[in-house]
Amino acid sequence: MSDLQPAAQPLCDATHDPALRSWVASANWPDADFPIQNLPLGRFRPVGRDPAQPEPLRVGVAIGDQVLDLKAAATMCPWADEVHPLLEPLAAGDLAAFMALGRPAWRTLRAALSAALAEGSDQGPFLESCLLPMAEAQMALPCRIGDYTDFYAGIHHARTVGALMRPDSPLLPNYAWVPIGYHGRASSVGIEGRVKRPQGQTRSKDSGEGGAPHVGPSKRLDYELELGLWIGAANALGEPVAMAQAEDRLFGVTLLNDWSARDIQAWEYQPLGPFLAKSFVTTVSPWVVSFEALAPFRRPPVRPADQPAALPYLESDFNAAHGALDITLEVWLQTAAMRTRGEPALRLSQSNALDACWTPAQLVTHHTSNGCNLQVGDLLGTGTLSGPLPEQGGSLLELSQGGRQPLTLPNGEQRSFLEDGDTVTLRAHCRAPGAVRIALGTVSGTVLAA
Amino acid sequence: MSDLQPAAQPLCDATHDPALRSWVASANWPDADFPIQNLPLGRFRPVGRDPAQPEPLRVGVAIGDQVLDLKAAATMCPWADEVHPLLEPLAAGDLAAFMALGRPAWRTLRAALSAALAEGSDQGPFLESCLLPMAEAQMALPCRIGDYTDFYAGIHHARTVGALMRPDSPLLPNYAWVPIGYHGRASSVGIEGRVKRPQGQTRSKDSGEGGAPHVGPSKRLDYELELGLWIGAANALGEPVAMAQAEDRLFGVTLLNDWSARDIQAWEYQPLGPFLAKSFVTTVSPWVVSFEALAPFRRPPVRPADQPAALPYLESDFNAAHGALDITLEVWLQTAAMRTRGEPALRLSQSNALDACWTPAQLVTHHTSNGCNLQVGDLLGTGTLSGPLPEQGGSLLELSQGGRQPLTLPNGEQRSFLEDGDTVTLRAHCRAPGAVRIALGTVSGTVLAA
Repeated sequence: MSDLQPAAQPLCDATHDPALRSWVASANWPDADFPIQNLPLGRFRPVGRDPAQPEPLRVGVAIGDQVLDLKAAATMCPWADEVHPLLEPLAAGDLAAFMALGRPAWRTLRAALSAALAEGSDQGPFLESCLLPMAEAQMALPCRIGDYTDFYAGIHHARTVGALMRPDSPLLPNYAWVPIGYHGRASSVGIEGRVKRPQGQTRSKDSGEGGAPHVGPSKRLDYELELGLWIGAANALGEPVAMAQAEDRLFGVTLLNDWSARDIQAWEYQPLGPFLAKSFVTTVSPWVVSFEALAPFRRPPVRPADQPAALPYLESDFNAAHGALDITLEVWLQTAAMRTRGEPALRLSQSNALDACWTPAQLVTHHTSNGCNLQVGDLLGTGTLSGPLPEQGGSLLELSQGGRQPLTLPNGEQRSFLEDGDTVTLRAHCRAPGAVRIALGTVSGTVLAA
Repeated sequence: MSDLQPAAQPLCDATHDPALRSWVASANWPDADFPIQNLPLGRFRPVGRDPAQPEPLRVGVAIGDQVLDLKAAATMCPWADEVHPLLEPLAAGDLAAFMALGRPAWRTLRAALSAALAEGSDQGPFLESCLLPMAEAQMALPCRIGDYTDFYAGIHHARTVGALMRPDSPLLPNYAWVPIGYHGRASSVGIEGRVKRPQGQTRSKDSGEGGAPHVGPSKRLDYELELGLWIGAANALGEPVAMAQAEDRLFGVTLLNDWSARDIQAWEYQPLGPFLAKSFVTTVSPWVVSFEALAPFRRPPVRPADQPAALPYLESDFNAAHGALDITLEVWLQTAAMRTRGEPALRLSQSNALDACWTPAQLVTHHTSNGCNLQVGDLLGTGTLSGPLPEQGGSLLELSQGGRQPLTLPNGEQRSFLEDGDTVTLRAHCRAPGAVRIALGTVSGTVLAA
């Protein structure tokens, strides 16, 4: 999308200045995920301490290949008066309490961190001792998730999956109008790297229509490439959030892998939707990239040519100008055999969040349109963000055409769905003219036997 | 079901003795909801104090028309040594922390409360000052709900609703085998008595297939009569709970009204299930009746004659002997006109939880069969518990045959779905030979204009 004008430029401020460099050297490396223009927040514990007595989680900022420990930074470094109350919940390890302070607080902290981490800052000498190599930080979920909702905003995904079942009418009539979504399972969302293959009821065509279903490990385990949107401001029950206010509910973005058992889903999902096919695990990347950091990568949303305009309650001037996110998304696979032979991971697909049919603000407004209350720390998944081309599918279900066309990997292995030992890694980054590249980091999971 | 042998009698102990009476006089009244054999727990605040400075919530026991305040009782009354650690979280107002202590603790507390509240107890004089009239207790949710799952275990409901859409095959093929369920919205579960009519997208047959949907207040607002099951013991992610252990995860039962907007649901629910049609509000009764209290009302589950036996992973000896709950369920309606004229509420339907197709333990085991982790304080809805007869439908959708046959009330009013000002009250009670009647109390909600 590099030929687009950067329509969101007015959203940017001094923290986005591409000339800005950090005294943390690794933040200035070309293609660093976490340059000083990014500054994502996350929770961690220092590794290597006594695991029997785990320390409370701390909040940190990713900068280059280092983590700035905000508990240490709050006391070791002088800060402007208005920053102290913002650092208080962060020093206590409570990222949700900081999120609840709202966008002015988020902006103030970002400006303060940017100034403190910038080359030449007189806070630098105080903060050097508050850095921890990223490899020594054991990451955790950014906060307790109240509710997790998963949407279906990836129209290419919806079309391809729909075509597997209904070749003549891939998209159902409501898809053009409703940001389709469903309630997900919050308790099984984690950043944990191991994914145990789920057991469940399945029925194959072989077993006939009348026979008992099979109970056993899923044979069609899959990943789904999504973004996770983190809610930073609540609305009361019964009070919908209009589009004009929806952006201010959005704190930040992570990657999200909506691990799915396709065979369990096919048998269980009628009439109430996916349940055990999804709730065995969902994983997110641990660093929450703020909407402030994403300012240079906001774009006007482009409705697909065959889709009607959004209904009025899902429109706003801001959304029309800046609602969409230009984030390049990738899926990488390393099989057990590749790992054994020392072969690097293979990129399975690349797509872009601009291909989502609905913007983050539209998801918030639709979600609350019935009065449903979103709470600080709630997580919204976008749905699988596939691109328009067959090789841009954000799941194996798409790439293998429902398992009918297995992928042949360069080393000769074949994949219709995931095998035990497969490691799936999602990656995402943003590039735009006149802006420094930032990235969301990664979320990885390795499939364990049932 | 009074001609059934009370198969669960071996589960009973001295706390179920029908001869047991309380020194709290109202607990001995005939048909008291909360006799000494019940002893449900709930959270409350004394009403009438300064609302600007709300006190922390307290945990209480319902006894007759009184609430025993366990914060006061913990200090004002002598208790046996083994009871003190159990009273600690309760005195702190943390019912979930007590639930997390597990079934032996639940049994010990029940026995201690039963002895202390029994006629002639020498603890009586200490506890009298710890009583509060129920009318002076403002009730709250029993605990923070981590995740809320709603099942579809009411086969008569599933059949009637299915027949509205598919007269020839009301039940989908998976219904016979899978305890169908979906993830619900936890944030909007409450005991609040006011239900704001939700707005949403709907499409009527009149608007044609191609036109834009309508956005406005739901015209088909409905209730659903369900039980809520409260999880009292957690399982780790990736560790299914076998049937033999499933009962020990179940702390207690409340009523649950799964308020539903049928027109929003009909338009949005394909392919991922109900979403905004449900998430505007769900209400539960505030007193959690323990599985210990329900011991005299456990029955062998009876699979419907046209349904296959449950798969082996959903069977256990205990479940076959005692898995089902004999709870009579009722829906009552008072319209605004009835209220104005001083007419009492009207009973719309009566059914029994024995008609559920799956037992509480089966719901727990199925839910965790993929490794999904249940947590203390999670809530499972059973699904609408209708009876086999047309007049036993647990929703207006059933009673009015999808709105095609409006109900005519004795005062001449008609109802296909709920009107603004309607108050819906769910009630439930248990009777069995040789046992004292106990009840779950009520959950009421009045519909407010959108």
